[in-house]
Amino acid sequence: MSREWTKNLRNIEPYVPGEQSKDRDIVKINANENPYPPSPKAVEVLKNFDTNNLRFYPNANSTRLKEAIAKYYKVDVSNVFVGNGSDDVLAVAFQSFFNSDKPIVYPDLTYSFYPVWCSLFGIEYKNYPVGDDFRINPEDYKEQNGGVVIPNPNAPTSLGEGLDFVEKILNYNQDSVVIIDEAYVDFGGTSSIPLINKYENLLVTGTFSKSRSLAGLRIGFAIGSKALIDVMEAVKNSYNSYTVDSLSIEMGAASIEDDEYFKSTCQKVIKTRERVTLELKKLGFDVLDSQTNFIFATHNEHNMKSLFEYLKTQKVFIRYFSLPRIENYVRITIGTNEEMDIFLEKTKEFILNDNR
Amino acid sequence: MSREWTKNLRNIEPYVPGEQSKDRDIVKINANENPYPPSPKAVEVLKNFDTNNLRFYPNANSTRLKEAIAKYYKVDVSNVFVGNGSDDVLAVAFQSFFNSDKPIVYPDLTYSFYPVWCSLFGIEYKNYPVGDDFRINPEDYKEQNGGVVIPNPNAPTSLGEGLDFVEKILNYNQDSVVIIDEAYVDFGGTSSIPLINKYENLLVTGTFSKSRSLAGLRIGFAIGSKALIDVMEAVKNSYNSYTVDSLSIEMGAASIEDDEYFKSTCQKVIKTRERVTLELKKLGFDVLDSQTNFIFATHNEHNMKSLFEYLKTQKVFIRYFSLPRIENYVRITIGTNEEMDIFLEKTKEFILNDNR
Repeated sequence: MSREWTKNLRNIEPYVPGEQSKDRDIVKINANENPYPPSPKAVEVLKNFDTNNLRFYPNANSTRLKEAIAKYYKVDVSNVFVGNGSDDVLAVAFQSFFNSDKPIVYPDLTYSFYPVWCSLFGIEYKNYPVGDDFRINPEDYKEQNGGVVIPNPNAPTSLGEGLDFVEKILNYNQDSVVIIDEAYVDFGGTSSIPLINKYENLLVTGTFSKSRSLAGLRIGFAIGSKALIDVMEAVKNSYNSYTVDSLSIEMGAASIEDDEYFKSTCQKVIKTRERVTLELKKLGFDVLDSQTNFIFATHNEHNMKSLFEYLKTQKVFIRYFSLPRIENYVRITIGTNEEMDIFLEKTKEFILNDNR
Repeated sequence: MSREWTKNLRNIEPYVPGEQSKDRDIVKINANENPYPPSPKAVEVLKNFDTNNLRFYPNANSTRLKEAIAKYYKVDVSNVFVGNGSDDVLAVAFQSFFNSDKPIVYPDLTYSFYPVWCSLFGIEYKNYPVGDDFRINPEDYKEQNGGVVIPNPNAPTSLGEGLDFVEKILNYNQDSVVIIDEAYVDFGGTSSIPLINKYENLLVTGTFSKSRSLAGLRIGFAIGSKALIDVMEAVKNSYNSYTVDSLSIEMGAASIEDDEYFKSTCQKVIKTRERVTLELKKLGFDVLDSQTNFIFATHNEHNMKSLFEYLKTQKVFIRYFSLPRIENYVRITIGTNEEMDIFLEKTKEFILNDNR
């Protein structure tokens, strides 16, 4: 048969997702997942769920979840968008707002999905390199553009900025939509959500996958002016009206209402992060000042790719990026204290035996 | 502040999802949902789910679910794609395959989301009107095009066609990708899945929302040649690597493995459909020969919009489309026998009291 039909197939470079393993023996500190289980209140919702209701479509507006998020962040329900993980939320935002003939702008070192969405949706983009200290310079973001995306805190650098920084970006960019991606903000960062009433062109995105231990459920959200949220709703409802399933709506709402558990697990992660940072520094590592649930570190006398590979043989999975400027860095997710003790022990072993 | 930033917002007509209600008193036969609960095997998976695992991202390849679907349909895992409901699956397929300068083609009376996706992705389309008997004429589909979408059985007409019909369409369209949308096939239709080995340009889509009573979970799938599935995977992984959550993967797999329960509930729906069809005919309705979990009916002497409105006052929700050619038709989902008795009783009341 003819192969003529193949000529209109989309030609796209497949994104390769990170390593996964079914082996629960491994210390899996490579995907910025939370080491603690989800809120017991969310688990209770799952166990008591009336499964007969699964035969119905989910509430198309995810009302219960949106209301819980709105209440938590002290905004109106009309300021809240929810989606199937923050990747879905960001992808909808890119489609909704970035339709200019000017390129959108974001830092060179950041979340690897931004250029992937640009390629999928045909959006031009331009990167501003972060400084030698890996910090984003707000003065770079003064040029006319088709939109701005700033991850705060940034990944994989782990560095966060304050509201003065975000307001600078907003003041330089009153003619574009500015997205602040706050996937990691709950581990010590500063949220820009209070600024949405002052800046109608500001969209803040978040996720339940890190600080709320619900990566497996796929819940992301965005908070912004009604003008922005309405466009996102229209785009979402033109793609799939039911992106958030019935269980995620109910469990997500129960999770955000359990603030005590949330705060205690975030604090545990932060405390472990500070301890591991100190221990790594004692071993001679340079560790960036993290406001996230991971640390970004390097060592002057040792090869980080070798460390990554050695740890893998020891069933400790961390993350290494073979990218310019960060080719001698590793990204280490904060696990439980027990997991981090294994990581530190194996890292010491590597340092002692490494003849670079 | 300036409103300059609003000029690059996506301008899109929001799709308005169908009516939903929290009131469980109503007879809700307006959304083609299944009246029976999901498989007890799927429910068991939910109740026994190790919720600690929700802190991990789902398996990015949904392997457990794909393997169960592949086994059920006797195809290779590389022939299976899964997504967040069949709306997500179809949207990915439209993006993957319809990149021609020629319009794609589909019937005028069909699923209302096809033109919505075309608008979202900038795809030109052309409709071929179904016949006066609401049947699709395969001879219409001979012209060169950028792709073909045929729902089989079709909605809202409820009419299905056999493999001879599908092979005609395929033979006329060897230079395009042909999508057969089988959302309703399990209620008496004929599946084209066995043809995928013969036609590399054929993609068949399905859903767990109707016959498997899992609309609330969002599970859709597609089956086709590895050439087609690979492109869909690349597009999906450029949008969101984790569209199917961990619970849906496990519950979906358990559901498709429970064939006995599946067959018995489908048979119950079919039996009720046949009974309701007879009863409606006794009341003077014209009822199309349904191969789905709904019936499409009209009455020469009564106004169907009035029937729809009257039933609503009686807490019986059916579906009415204010569209040319079908403005005197109603679409009635098959509920339980008890629900359909209420529907029939209220419909009789309407007929008796209606002075058209």
